Amino acid sequence: MSDTQNNCDIEFSPESLSNASLMAATTAAIAACLQNGDLRALRNFFASHETADVAALFSKLPSQVAIGAMAALETHDQARLFGYLAPPCQTEISKLISRRDLATIMAAMSPDERADLYKRLDPLAQEAVLPGLALAERDDLRRLASYPEGTVGAIMTSNYATLAPHLTAPQAIDALRRLALDTETIYQSYVTDPDQRLLGVVDLRDLLVARSDQRVQDIMDGEPAHVRAEAPREDAASMISRYDLLAMPVIDADDKLVGIVTQDDAMDVQEEEATSDFHKAGTVQRLASSVRDATLLALYRARISWLVLLVFFNIFSGAGIAFFEETIQANVVLLFFLPLLIASGGNAGSQSSTLMVRALATGDVGVSDWTSMLGREIAVALLLGLSMAVPVSLLGVLRAGPEIAVVVSITMVVIVLVGSLIGMTLPFLLNRFRLDPATASGPLITSVADVLGVLIYFGIATRILTLA
Amino acid sequence: MSDTQNNCDIEFSPESLSNASLMAATTAAIAACLQNGDLRALRNFFASHETADVAALFSKLPSQVAIGAMAALETHDQARLFGYLAPPCQTEISKLISRRDLATIMAAMSPDERADLYKRLDPLAQEAVLPGLALAERDDLRRLASYPEGTVGAIMTSNYATLAPHLTAPQAIDALRRLALDTETIYQSYVTDPDQRLLGVVDLRDLLVARSDQRVQDIMDGEPAHVRAEAPREDAASMISRYDLLAMPVIDADDKLVGIVTQDDAMDVQEEEATSDFHKAGTVQRLASSVRDATLLALYRARISWLVLLVFFNIFSGAGIAFFEETIQANVVLLFFLPLLIASGGNAGSQSSTLMVRALATGDVGVSDWTSMLGREIAVALLLGLSMAVPVSLLGVLRAGPEIAVVVSITMVVIVLVGSLIGMTLPFLLNRFRLDPATASGPLITSVADVLGVLIYFGIATRILTLA
Repeated sequence: MSDTQNNCDIEFSPESLSNASLMAATTAAIAACLQNGDLRALRNFFASHETADVAALFSKLPSQVAIGAMAALETHDQARLFGYLAPPCQTEISKLISRRDLATIMAAMSPDERADLYKRLDPLAQEAVLPGLALAERDDLRRLASYPEGTVGAIMTSNYATLAPHLTAPQAIDALRRLALDTETIYQSYVTDPDQRLLGVVDLRDLLVARSDQRVQDIMDGEPAHVRAEAPREDAASMISRYDLLAMPVIDADDKLVGIVTQDDAMDVQEEEATSDFHKAGTVQRLASSVRDATLLALYRARISWLVLLVFFNIFSGAGIAFFEETIQANVVLLFFLPLLIASGGNAGSQSSTLMVRALATGDVGVSDWTSMLGREIAVALLLGLSMAVPVSLLGVLRAGPEIAVVVSITMVVIVLVGSLIGMTLPFLLNRFRLDPATASGPLITSVADVLGVLIYFGIATRILTLA
Repeated sequence: MSDTQNNCDIEFSPESLSNASLMAATTAAIAACLQNGDLRALRNFFASHETADVAALFSKLPSQVAIGAMAALETHDQARLFGYLAPPCQTEISKLISRRDLATIMAAMSPDERADLYKRLDPLAQEAVLPGLALAERDDLRRLASYPEGTVGAIMTSNYATLAPHLTAPQAIDALRRLALDTETIYQSYVTDPDQRLLGVVDLRDLLVARSDQRVQDIMDGEPAHVRAEAPREDAASMISRYDLLAMPVIDADDKLVGIVTQDDAMDVQEEEATSDFHKAGTVQRLASSVRDATLLALYRARISWLVLLVFFNIFSGAGIAFFEETIQANVVLLFFLPLLIASGGNAGSQSSTLMVRALATGDVGVSDWTSMLGREIAVALLLGLSMAVPVSLLGVLRAGPEIAVVVSITMVVIVLVGSLIGMTLPFLLNRFRLDPATASGPLITSVADVLGVLIYFGIATRILTLA
């Protein structure tokens, strides 16, 4: 609906973002509005689209056009838009606008987005924007910005609603009505004692259906799920997902309430962690920004160390081949089957590790489940190996005679079994030693399976062909 | 908190789930309570833990113990617990309890969970439970169950709150108070005309802060984000994530409101889709259940077709080697470098495809971005190839002399470049032809890179060593 009733002359839909000519038209239309001083059109444009979409557009505009267009908006809308901008774009605009404008926008941003932006500013800019904030905001900002990346503290926000335990339900609803505009959510509020210690959580729904003489302390959940600010952010995300929570209270080392993590933050964490695991499984190290925004050097750094490391494994494969040079020179036809045998072990191993890495990441299986998974893995791997041995043995007979066919089919079964067992075991081992199981990536498993595959293949070939 | 104040004698925490001896103790304690008829202890146990945790425990209990313990609970709690059970466990218990008990529990379940369970029942059981439901519930169930898996309709729920547009804010709040116990959420309500067509969405927060003479139609968002019931479920999940929504209205082909998708359902979809992409990237096909619950046959099926398919690519590698037999027999030392060169191309390609597959899945880059990514990919791949060529050329000099070193280092640069370009391009191509980019898995890229790698390596070697 939002696209059809657009009543200004800037044409834009989320689909335009990945279409160069549509983007050029939108950019030109915005630039034209700026040149004509038609600020009303810009405000209408903002009002008739979702902020997230406008931000995605602004993140792709030339900085000067984006800054000009932002200037047309009210501070409140500027702050919302700013919070949604892609980090590199946010940082760049922060550098280009005046420190005073930046402080005004930051004062209007939500505390968690403000802290994220603050952390990305250079120290001089950090110093410069602080005086533009009220004292309470300044303290709050310093505190939020102090939690290391990857912790719950770094994703929580500090504008939550608190209620005193002795309030009656109607009093509590009145209090929430007054807080409604300044807090992230009023649908869940946090009941604290005078020392800010968390006593419970109360849903607005329960306050609404309560009798008017019931007090907050009678209605609240007195044993709410909660998380510590220093805990890994995945903990908060997975509890929110598991328990279907709207938000989760965060406490510090003294059990004091210091923030909340909301469900939409949890979704972002879940997506980022899935991306990070996905990248690790493809031997790409954590990128600070998206692929689109990453610098060449960052991309190079994220990839080079694994590539070099894996080469070392492959030197062992080469050494294995060199060791069996005699067998190979006597039966060059063995080389024909080398790629398919070696690759099958790596492929089977990479399948097994894929299943286990993800199951461990989602909590589907635990470390102690290794033994119970082992029997199944052996059974499945034998089935797979035997299925693969049939066509390969036919190929062997056709191309190189029955002896080679025997070598090749035995090798296939052993290699698929060994590859699968390595693939399923390595993630558990890494987890056991508190390393990230996602490091047991396909390419790593493939490299290990390659070395063993060479030894198994030529070992079996040497034995059988010498005996024969 | 919930674990320490547990006032019955059944010891349990979420950590117990992955510890065999703790699980045995918990199971024994529950069985003992059942034998002693101590139903109060079971009810206390349920009340003092999160439903999701109890359900995870019940999904691991012997069916008869689980059924006995469930019988101790009120229907309402049974229904909540049942909704959280792992699907195979839910189906098994459904078969073991009486049809009447099943109908009672299903009547108390939330509509979306009821429909999910209904779809898993066999046709006879489906027929048998329908008479136990009220007419309206029956129609609702049939309608919800009619949407195919993977669509928005299959994850939406039908107990949302609707409001008439002419209600004043206090009237609307009163209406929501009455609906509070029977709807999934009252924090967002849907404004409809008499034909159930969606007019807008209104937040409870906005109703609370409105003046008492303001009407719903003045406060509502008249252009809310919405989705069609037949759309892929990922569409709803990604819009909820992108726009930070609590819930999203679902409309049918006649623009009538038929359901809502909530944020917690969106989180589940996001996690399942990430798992599915992760599996595809490791050449594992979609599993209907978790790795832990999957049958041997299901695991075999999910893996065999890719393994066989990839073998075919590797036959080409073998044929490539066979084609260059003369060059190899004249320079057997070339074989030493074969694994590391071939693998590097595959590894670089698998890195590139990993980055692109995930970026396409999260919407970080679009199909039209291929050209703009190409230049960067070439630059990064050349940097990587040159970095790898240095140590490899040293190894070449040491092991086989300067000529081979030249062959090996040129091959490394070309192979890493070709591998990277294939890895980055294939996901775009698949997306362009409306296939799932995640199919451009590491193993597939590796296999393609292997074939080309063999040809490149021995091609360069034949040319240079013959010239020399």
